[in-house]
Amino acid sequence: MSNIAVLAGDGIGPEVMVEAKKVLAAVADKFQFTLKTQDYDVGGAAIDIHGNALPDVTMKGCQAADAILFGSVGGPKWANLPPTEQPERCALLGLRGHFDLFCNMRPATLQPALSSLSTLRSDISAQGFDVLVIRELTGDIYFGEPKGRKGEGDEETGFDSMFYSRREIKRIAHLAFQAAQKRNNKVTSVDKANVLATSQLWRQVVEEVAVEYPNVTFEHLYVDNAAMQLVRDPNQFDVMLCPNLFGDILSDICAMITGSMGLLPSASLNSDGFGMYEPAGGSAPDIAGQGIANPIAQILSAALMLRYSLNQDNAAKAIEEAVGSALDNGILTADLLPAEQRSNAKTTSEVGDYICAQI
Amino acid sequence: MSNIAVLAGDGIGPEVMVEAKKVLAAVADKFQFTLKTQDYDVGGAAIDIHGNALPDVTMKGCQAADAILFGSVGGPKWANLPPTEQPERCALLGLRGHFDLFCNMRPATLQPALSSLSTLRSDISAQGFDVLVIRELTGDIYFGEPKGRKGEGDEETGFDSMFYSRREIKRIAHLAFQAAQKRNNKVTSVDKANVLATSQLWRQVVEEVAVEYPNVTFEHLYVDNAAMQLVRDPNQFDVMLCPNLFGDILSDICAMITGSMGLLPSASLNSDGFGMYEPAGGSAPDIAGQGIANPIAQILSAALMLRYSLNQDNAAKAIEEAVGSALDNGILTADLLPAEQRSNAKTTSEVGDYICAQI
Ligand SMILES: CC(C)[C@H](C(=O)O)[C@@H](O)C(=O)O
Ligand SMILES: CC(C)[C@H](C(=O)O)[C@@H](O)C(=O)O
Repeated sequence: MSNIAVLAGDGIGPEVMVEAKKVLAAVADKFQFTLKTQDYDVGGAAIDIHGNALPDVTMKGCQAADAILFGSVGGPKWANLPPTEQPERCALLGLRGHFDLFCNMRPATLQPALSSLSTLRSDISAQGFDVLVIRELTGDIYFGEPKGRKGEGDEETGFDSMFYSRREIKRIAHLAFQAAQKRNNKVTSVDKANVLATSQLWRQVVEEVAVEYPNVTFEHLYVDNAAMQLVRDPNQFDVMLCPNLFGDILSDICAMITGSMGLLPSASLNSDGFGMYEPAGGSAPDIAGQGIANPIAQILSAALMLRYSLNQDNAAKAIEEAVGSALDNGILTADLLPAEQRSNAKTTSEVGDYICAQI
Repeated sequence: MSNIAVLAGDGIGPEVMVEAKKVLAAVADKFQFTLKTQDYDVGGAAIDIHGNALPDVTMKGCQAADAILFGSVGGPKWANLPPTEQPERCALLGLRGHFDLFCNMRPATLQPALSSLSTLRSDISAQGFDVLVIRELTGDIYFGEPKGRKGEGDEETGFDSMFYSRREIKRIAHLAFQAAQKRNNKVTSVDKANVLATSQLWRQVVEEVAVEYPNVTFEHLYVDNAAMQLVRDPNQFDVMLCPNLFGDILSDICAMITGSMGLLPSASLNSDGFGMYEPAGGSAPDIAGQGIANPIAQILSAALMLRYSLNQDNAAKAIEEAVGSALDNGILTADLLPAEQRSNAKTTSEVGDYICAQI
């Protein structure tokens, strides 16, 4: 039996999570395994109840679980709290740090059938693309100390520290090359080695790791160039291996240029296979509570959880196929439809029901 | 009389610089002022001759000048040098640091007439956009110490330090608000205040400065969100105020989504009005020496130089109008034409000659 800590959070989180749970129940039934899900408060909802976006009881529940299925956190109500107390930062950085979730996988796929949603020019988007951003998630300038303020008056200075060790770079680089071997055999490593000493070590270690994967095509790109290439020709990429800060920016660009963020799941793993799974998009407070949010990113996040943390690859595949069938058959929420077709949009629960029925 | 240090550099640098010099001579003649230009080696060309991408003689020439007109540097021949010796880093960071060129202005304009060149979807690009990235250019993680390596074996660690002082943030923020007042009265300040202490000070100081410009609309965006918004709807932006590292990435996205990098100039200024002026694009070694490179970015960089460092606003305007007339009348290099019309492309010098003739 597997235990899942379910952290639905704020905004559309709870309503899309309902659908993901339905789908999980459907595959557990079909593939005959037992899943126990337990809900915990997180984000703004947890601030309101417990005074803290990541309460002890939630942390303990996650520790006792085999995986975390995460919804989304944040909203205008909590936007003016001091940075360290804000739902996004407090919950996400807290969980990543505590469980050492160093490997963040953010796939961004543009299927040719949905290419008109892409924000890129039609001749670029017509080719579709399939990029997997592998972002290091526990190092870099996120957690580096010292970090703070010093001095006074005009000389008051804010400061942060960026670090990567050989060990940290190696472990994420191996995962990127291994992922590429199961995909299109190409790794693009992103850095700013013309400026950063951290990037110079990054570049050197990634090169050493690359030697062990002679069949994988390998290149370095500076982050500024990588950002440009993504908006010029994303189809040139397969796996993009990124340090934490650059991965934050590039994975969001990848997500946006699909034009269908509501379809994109993500996984954040540690070296024991424990992981946290969440949609790429945010809590979308503007559409929350209306039953119109796209549940697919949350449902595909549950599929990644089955694959990476629960060793249920067949169940994961069944979900992915059922989602494919919903997309092929036009069972779509409004975000996936052009303005003039939105009257045909399905609701959040209609999409979830359809996917369950296919399983 | 004004003295210009001309640093043409590598790749297409020398050939587009020829056109910029012709145009400068034409406006000097028309508006009756005297300009003296003096050439100096820089970049790969300087490495080959002097063993250093930024030789002393070049530095001295720049010190004696009223402004620097810079071409572009770098190419495959020098790509495998150690990072600190590479043409781009050595020349650009050397000049920026020495002359305290803290204010980098990178305008990115998409004229509706050229909207089909944009890499964005046609309904987005049809609206055109006009974004001015104001990038802080001497602080942040670029020059921060300590920077280096420590430790051994798997614990060998690369590190960099990010800093911003109140003074540095204030001076660039004022310039951004003043620029917005001459444009569309909006400033978007970019940071990562949910993670970086440096950004938290940045946000606070920019807010304090904003109070002095009550007529300018003002917002903060996290850098990941800013990158997404740029590829979704660039038309929402007027002035984007960025710290050095984020500005590097975002200004390149802005340039790329115009689809016409060959039109984009940039200026890097210090507090005395001394500045360095250069095209947004690179040295494009693949097309160098063929006489087909677009000279307009270099010519518009010369116009910015006249405006910001030489107090010749009329001459700057005359150049900008002449460039506008070249674009309106289809006097275009191949990069601005769709593939099937490239046989009508004008050469580098034909475009330069046309612009001179309009002046
Ligand atoms: C909320 C923030 C701390 C976080 C990050 O920067 O990692 C978010 O942007 C993300 O990408 O998950
Ligand atoms: C060459 C490099 C150091 C430089 C930078 O990062 O500033 C370049 O990318 C730029 O934007 O001018």
